[in-house]
This record gives sequence, C-alpha cells and structure tokens, in this order.
Amino acid sequence: MVADLYSSRISKEAKMIRRQDDVIHKNSELFQGPLSAEDLKTYERNGYLLFKDLFSKEDIQVLKEELRHVMELNKNNNSEDVIREPGSNEVRSIFEIHKNSEFFERLSKNKKLVSIAQQLLGSQVYITQSRINFKPGFKGKEFYWHSDFETWHVEDGMPNMRAVSCSIVLTDNHEFNGPLMLIPGSHKWYVSCSGETPENNYKQSLQKQELGVPDENSLKTLVDQAGGRIDRATGPAGSVLFFDSNIMHASSGNISPFSRSNVFFVFNSIENQLTNPFSDANPRPEFLANRKNIQPIKPLDESIISVPSLVESK
Amino acid sequence: MVADLYSSRISKEAKMIRRQDDVIHKNSELFQGPLSAEDLKTYERNGYLLFKDLFSKEDIQVLKEELRHVMELNKNNNSEDVIREPGSNEVRSIFEIHKNSEFFERLSKNKKLVSIAQQLLGSQVYITQSRINFKPGFKGKEFYWHSDFETWHVEDGMPNMRAVSCSIVLTDNHEFNGPLMLIPGSHKWYVSCSGETPENNYKQSLQKQELGVPDENSLKTLVDQAGGRIDRATGPAGSVLFFDSNIMHASSGNISPFSRSNVFFVFNSIENQLTNPFSDANPRPEFLANRKNIQPIKPLDESIISVPSLVESK
Repeated sequence: MVADLYSSRISKEAKMIRRQDDVIHKNSELFQGPLSAEDLKTYERNGYLLFKDLFSKEDIQVLKEELRHVMELNKNNNSEDVIREPGSNEVRSIFEIHKNSEFFERLSKNKKLVSIAQQLLGSQVYITQSRINFKPGFKGKEFYWHSDFETWHVEDGMPNMRAVSCSIVLTDNHEFNGPLMLIPGSHKWYVSCSGETPENNYKQSLQKQELGVPDENSLKTLVDQAGGRIDRATGPAGSVLFFDSNIMHASSGNISPFSRSNVFFVFNSIENQLTNPFSDANPRPEFLANRKNIQPIKPLDESIISVPSLVESK
Repeated sequence: MVADLYSSRISKEAKMIRRQDDVIHKNSELFQGPLSAEDLKTYERNGYLLFKDLFSKEDIQVLKEELRHVMELNKNNNSEDVIREPGSNEVRSIFEIHKNSEFFERLSKNKKLVSIAQQLLGSQVYITQSRINFKPGFKGKEFYWHSDFETWHVEDGMPNMRAVSCSIVLTDNHEFNGPLMLIPGSHKWYVSCSGETPENNYKQSLQKQELGVPDENSLKTLVDQAGGRIDRATGPAGSVLFFDSNIMHASSGNISPFSRSNVFFVFNSIENQLTNPFSDANPRPEFLANRKNIQPIKPLDESIISVPSLVESK
C-alpha cells in the first residue's frame, strides 16, 4: 500500500498542503542533461520552462504537416481515444499518439525532449499520457484552474509529484487567443479540493463537475504569493513548454479567429508508476493513464525531419 | 423618415459595408479640443484612444469610493436599471448613473471627458447611455464580438456613426483578467448581420441571441486587414478609453482572482439623436437608450475631488 501524501476530495473543506516531493529530482551521476543551472533555478521557482527555439522552423513545418496528417487519418476513427466536438463530427483531440502514430512515437522519444524530462525527474522516464489537440478559433472554451496532479493522483493513482508535461505549440500563441496561464510557484502547494465522494453513484455526472476544482481562497493565496503574477505561455509556433505536474494552470476561452493546436506528452518518472487510485474510483481508461507494458524510453538522437513516416505521408 | 444607411438583420447573408460617416467629425471653429493632431490620426486609424493619466491617483481613489458608495446605495433597489447576477442578489451593473447619482452626473459633464467627445464628434454632445459595471473575479463571462452601433442603430434608431463610448477603468486591467479587446480599423466597416426578423414573435428569445452577431468570415477579414492585430485595453486603474461606436470589440472571460469595475458613458452628437429603430422592433427602454429631455451637456471645468457628494458620502 502506497502512502497517500496528497489526499483530496474527502472533506467539505478545501486545504492547502505543502508539496512533499522535490521539484527537481537531482540525480547528477546519471543525468547531467541539457538544462543549465539557471534553467533549473527558474523551473524550481516558477514550476515551468518555456523554450522558443528548441526546434527549427523546418521542424515545426514537419510537425504541422504530421498533425494534419494524423487528424485526417482519424477523421472516421470512432475509438474512444479520438475526442470529437459535441454536436459536430470534428476531431478535437487524439490520445495515445505516442502509440498510434510512428511519427509521434519517435517524437515522444526525441532526445531533445526526453533528456530534459530525465534531468528534471532524476530518472528514466515513460509517457503516461499523450495527445494532440486542435481547437478552432471563435469558439474555444475556457479551461478552469486545476492541478493535473490532483486528478492523476486521485483518479489514476500517481503516487508522487514526479511527472512533467511537455507541450509543443504548433500555432502562434498570442495574449488574445487563450494561451495557457500558469501561476508561478503554485507547484509548491497542493490544493486539496473539497467535495466528498458521494456514497452512491446517484447524479454522479453532476457531482463530478465539482470534484477536483480548487477553491477561490486557495487560488487567491497562490496568486498573492506570486506577487499578483499570472504568467502566459505566449510565443511563436514551435515553442515548447515544460510544466510541473502540480502547477496550477488554466486557459481562457478563445474568441479570436486564430485556431490553436499542440502536441502534448506527459513524462512520468519510471519510479513513479501508477498504483490504485487514491480514492474509491475505478482507474480511468488506459488512453488517459498508461499502465500496461511500461518501459523506460530509450532516447532517439535524431532530427525530426529525418523521420521516415513523413516521407510516406507525402 | 431618416435614411437607413446601415441595414442589418434583414437577410440570410452577412455583408460588410463601408462606413458612410466620418470617423472624426471636424468642426474646427467650435471645438479645437484637447486632442493633438497625432491623437486624432490614431483615433481615425485605430478607432480608439487609451489615456493612462487623464485623472490623478487621488481622482481614481475618489472614483472608486463613489462606485462602492453607489453599489451600496442600490443593494436593495429593484428598479429595472439595476442589473443583478442571475441566481444571486449581487449587483452587476447600474444604468442611468448620469441621472441617479449627483457625483456621476457631474463626472459625465467633466470637461476633460466632454471636450474630447465634442472634438471627435464635431458638435455638442449628450449622454445616450451610462452605467457602472462590477465584475467579480473567477467567474467573469466572455462577451462576444460586436459593434455597439449595430444594436443602437437597429434597436434604438441611432441614425449615424457619430457617438463615442468612454470607459473609465477603476481596476488594473491585465492581459489575464479579460481586458476589452478591439480590432483596430474595424470601425471603418459595418458588418451587416444575418438573421431575418421572425414574422411572428414565436420563440423570440431563442432568435434574439442570434441577432446582431457578426459572422466569422467578416471578423476574419477585419482582423486580417489589421495585420492580425487584436489590441487589448490594458493599463493601470484610472485608464480612460474612448472608442468609436462601430468598432468591433469583445472581452474574454475572467477566471483570474482580480475583479473588474468601470464607469461607462456613451456620448452621442446632439445632431445624431435617436429616431425610430431601424427594424420592426419597439424602442428599448429609456435606461438603455435616452430619448427624453435631451439637452447638450454644458461642460463642468472642475476637479473630481471637489465634487460635493463625496463629502456627504463619507
């Protein structure tokens, strides 16, 4: 039985708990890694790092074409890991792309990305969730404040804060098209959310929307501690964002004409594999939380452009 | 019968029409005004002007206190010009404050504001609508793209584009708490909205939501013409924004902890008074569109701080 360091959704009161885990899991012998001491300090302090030129313009072009290609391929795919807009046939997200697409499988092993994850997590890593997202302009919905870790812990059984999300943004992110917002430093606190799990499943769907939502007082405190700062991950297409599993983040709606798309990998430490959920809930499906055949990634030291699947798709 | 230069909501097709009216109504003899040639060029080009220091810090403090005072006074006022949040008792907007509050009446006549409106509109001016808004943090709703003039023309019978809105922002406007967004240059085009007025009033409320909403193609064209720009009216508390009645504007939701409040006056040219609506609709109520006892404003050349009502309210 793994200890529950971060209980949530068990009380009527919300509560802020100090983070129990390191932010950076130092393992200097195994992984020197590409991040500078300055990068590491910034990540430790803010809980995220934004790189504007990890990939070349040509790389980004290839990525965009591959995204279009995968979207096209899955147009008529009705499996549960392809998410469509309610009321229309349009594909919005495709999960498990590190398994279902050779190009994105290789990208998820790309040394540029993996070595950063390894350095932050101080161990070998694997992908616990992946997806590509496509959000059209004009009607992009807001995504309220949340810590991914809260859900991954309670619903998926992730024991510790030792995972990092990597988002490769394939469209220009402006202030006005709903960029990801992050509260710097919020990764150092765990907001235990209110909402007792109902005794039976009656009106479960109604209850569910209220589970895992941080309370306004805790959010205010986190923003106050950040000196009133709420950072936005804006930047040109191709920017790569690494952010801690527990950082409080959100995005506003997007009513601009500019659509948004990105590739999303969650790297988890091989020493932090999923156990039983820290709640009475059943584990969520494999496409949201990988449990099967977990192997540490062997990084591929190659250019994106050389990946063979691109040639096939042309 | 006044000619309808800007018909809308009469066809199934949306359409972009070139603006028929001047942006700046020059009347150099009567109103030299406080705006520089540079200011006027900027307003002509962008359709708005943002001033960050029209009022002093002390002025802003007084404004904030008066706003709080008026909100408090109207807590239990159930008249139709006090708008409450659905499902709660909280006051969100108070209309007609240039009539119902001595402080805001005097503010609406303040020479600093009125002389700018006169210079832009080339005539004497009056207030066609006023309000104060209070929007709490965390749950601020988005306001989709619209031209105020489209509504004022079709529903209120404003004949020409010869009105200017003045918004005095009483809270800091950040990129992340849903600032007003404006498409620069969009005031030079009129987007005639689709949506035929239904023959009978059946399901009127359902129809209504779709009336006066610009189509996505026109919005795309307007943003393209602006070189992809969407400007945001960010700035410290006390910033004053003047924007053309026909500029396309919107705001995203506000899920930050920071509330937003502002005072809003619409100055209309005395030569552009409301006639019958340019549609079959009945005129909207007086609190949304002033028609009664219209008199040109006589500007008051006084400091905000000296206004007597403040002394009373302390």
